[in-house]
Amino acid sequence: MNPFPPDDVRAGVDAALAAHVARLRDELAPLGPDAAPFVDAFEASFEGGKRLRAAFAYWSWRAHLSGPPTEEGHRTALRVGAALELYQAAALAHDDVMDGSDTRRGRPSAHRAFEARHRALGWSGDAARFGEAAAILLGDLALVAAEREFGDAVASAEHGLAARAVFDELRTEVAVGQYLDVLGQVTEWGSDPAADEARARNVLRAKSARYSVEHPLVIGAALAGADRAARDRIGRIGLAIGEAFQLRDDLLGVFGDPATTGKPAGDDLREGKRTVLLARTAARASAEEVRALRAHLGRRDLDPAAIAELSDIVARSGAVTEVEALIAELADPALAELAAAPLAEPARSVLLDLGRAAVRRDT
Amino acid sequence: MNPFPPDDVRAGVDAALAAHVARLRDELAPLGPDAAPFVDAFEASFEGGKRLRAAFAYWSWRAHLSGPPTEEGHRTALRVGAALELYQAAALAHDDVMDGSDTRRGRPSAHRAFEARHRALGWSGDAARFGEAAAILLGDLALVAAEREFGDAVASAEHGLAARAVFDELRTEVAVGQYLDVLGQVTEWGSDPAADEARARNVLRAKSARYSVEHPLVIGAALAGADRAARDRIGRIGLAIGEAFQLRDDLLGVFGDPATTGKPAGDDLREGKRTVLLARTAARASAEEVRALRAHLGRRDLDPAAIAELSDIVARSGAVTEVEALIAELADPALAELAAAPLAEPARSVLLDLGRAAVRRDT
Repeated sequence: MNPFPPDDVRAGVDAALAAHVARLRDELAPLGPDAAPFVDAFEASFEGGKRLRAAFAYWSWRAHLSGPPTEEGHRTALRVGAALELYQAAALAHDDVMDGSDTRRGRPSAHRAFEARHRALGWSGDAARFGEAAAILLGDLALVAAEREFGDAVASAEHGLAARAVFDELRTEVAVGQYLDVLGQVTEWGSDPAADEARARNVLRAKSARYSVEHPLVIGAALAGADRAARDRIGRIGLAIGEAFQLRDDLLGVFGDPATTGKPAGDDLREGKRTVLLARTAARASAEEVRALRAHLGRRDLDPAAIAELSDIVARSGAVTEVEALIAELADPALAELAAAPLAEPARSVLLDLGRAAVRRDT
Repeated sequence: MNPFPPDDVRAGVDAALAAHVARLRDELAPLGPDAAPFVDAFEASFEGGKRLRAAFAYWSWRAHLSGPPTEEGHRTALRVGAALELYQAAALAHDDVMDGSDTRRGRPSAHRAFEARHRALGWSGDAARFGEAAAILLGDLALVAAEREFGDAVASAEHGLAARAVFDELRTEVAVGQYLDVLGQVTEWGSDPAADEARARNVLRAKSARYSVEHPLVIGAALAGADRAARDRIGRIGLAIGEAFQLRDDLLGVFGDPATTGKPAGDDLREGKRTVLLARTAARASAEEVRALRAHLGRRDLDPAAIAELSDIVARSGAVTEVEALIAELADPALAELAAAPLAEPARSVLLDLGRAAVRRDT
């Protein structure tokens, strides 16, 4: 009944990634041995990911097929998934430089790993500066790799152009959405909570909800040759689940357990992320609490006591309950629409599981 | 005889770039007005370029055609040229962040322009950090734009896949070549000039000669459907001209006039670029002079007097004469081979002019 069971998707995406790295090593051999540690770092940059975007794309492809999946289509969908994961690695490498993050997935971030290598080998010049430069280039390499993998994957696919158009839009929108996020961290905040929330919601959609859920789902549907109505439906479902997913992530960014998130507790507060959660907090907190938030949000040197004080303000305000309600408002009808949609099994059930997992409390 | 005269190439590429920006503005309109200054900065990032890579690609396409150029082929070649210029804008934005460069083409570099905007508008947080983050994202946007433009350009071109394969290789190699360049600036230098020169030559090929000349020429040839032998020939010619071009650029980086280069005098010394010129200098200079080079190369705070002292060491060593000889050794036979190659006119003559201009003293 199901020639390509769920467990194989992760393995298949990882195999496509490994094949990509092997080709890259061959191609770069003429540049000599100094390039090898850079490719090692590139390979490490996508280890340990949940492959969430790849899974959304793959199972959406399966869900939208009108006939049984072919071996060739299966390979294409896995490679498209690999391209999405390569793109994610690029975004994370640059993100961590911009945020000055020390860790990623519980390990040193790329720029910190290069910085440590500089120190360990006793190189000259500024180790931190070297680390940042190397991580910017690592991100560039991963960005190019994502596009090569995607292009190769869909080169002979019947609906490759339609899928590529979505991937193009995705990458453009994430770059601009990230700029809006960075901008939001330095511009006026806290005096007009409704405007703050509108901005936060805009950033959340562009750099997260559409990127992580809607676009992967639509890419899968496009690959399967789904018509406009079916693509719009899965896109609408994906946007709502994606927003709920990011709202959940924002809660984890303040209250999450470092063992689960792979990030220090309260990291979002230290980075000064202007989330919907914080806009709701500002709308309900006292003037004094809002002043404290404005004064401390985004201070890189926030100690655990200050983090605890800020997260207490968020907790006390009632914003958490509101955001939980918003998550349910977004996710519940979307999951219901997904459950009722005329999509192929077992893919629909897998998508439902993925969607539920993305928005539930204990992840 | 010549339906598309040389002067029109620059205008045609600029028109393709303007059309790209217009589409992007439409696409990003839903993200609201905050995104507009970011797109303005994107547009500014490719203003004022010489369009050298676009010209090499376009005229190589023309030179390798077996019949007369078609209007459709002309448009494709111009758009491919626009893609190369978008890619160049991406590389420069990231380069300037990595090098901490204040200026580009005589104007503030992208990260400095964003930093100035932050200060002018009285935003909160660290202006320099904001500038770097925005410029990293600007580079990412330009990288994606380059790939979109290239993909759209060749989507229905007969030999699009062959051209795309070269563009893919180009982008990968530049990222890795830039890493090797950054690495070279922090690792042991000056004690083994032959090894230093080999490394410098490796970097020069990967991040400059192949990127700026060989690959654009091969992309043009591929677009025209040139066979393997013709592609190899124009690639070989392009590599030699490209190496000579970069060796010339290295001389300008030490001795160039800021009014011509758009960069402060001696900028390469301040950045610590480990060029063939400096490897030759180290091979011929006294032990004391080499110690001075090792101590001061790459110091961001080098004052004009120190710059003058270092450039005197280079000038006294005789390395300039050697590099001039190397430029001639590389460029002369390549230009002769180009002049004798069975290529279509007037494109061959334009390519010869472009090649000569790229390597001559007064540019």
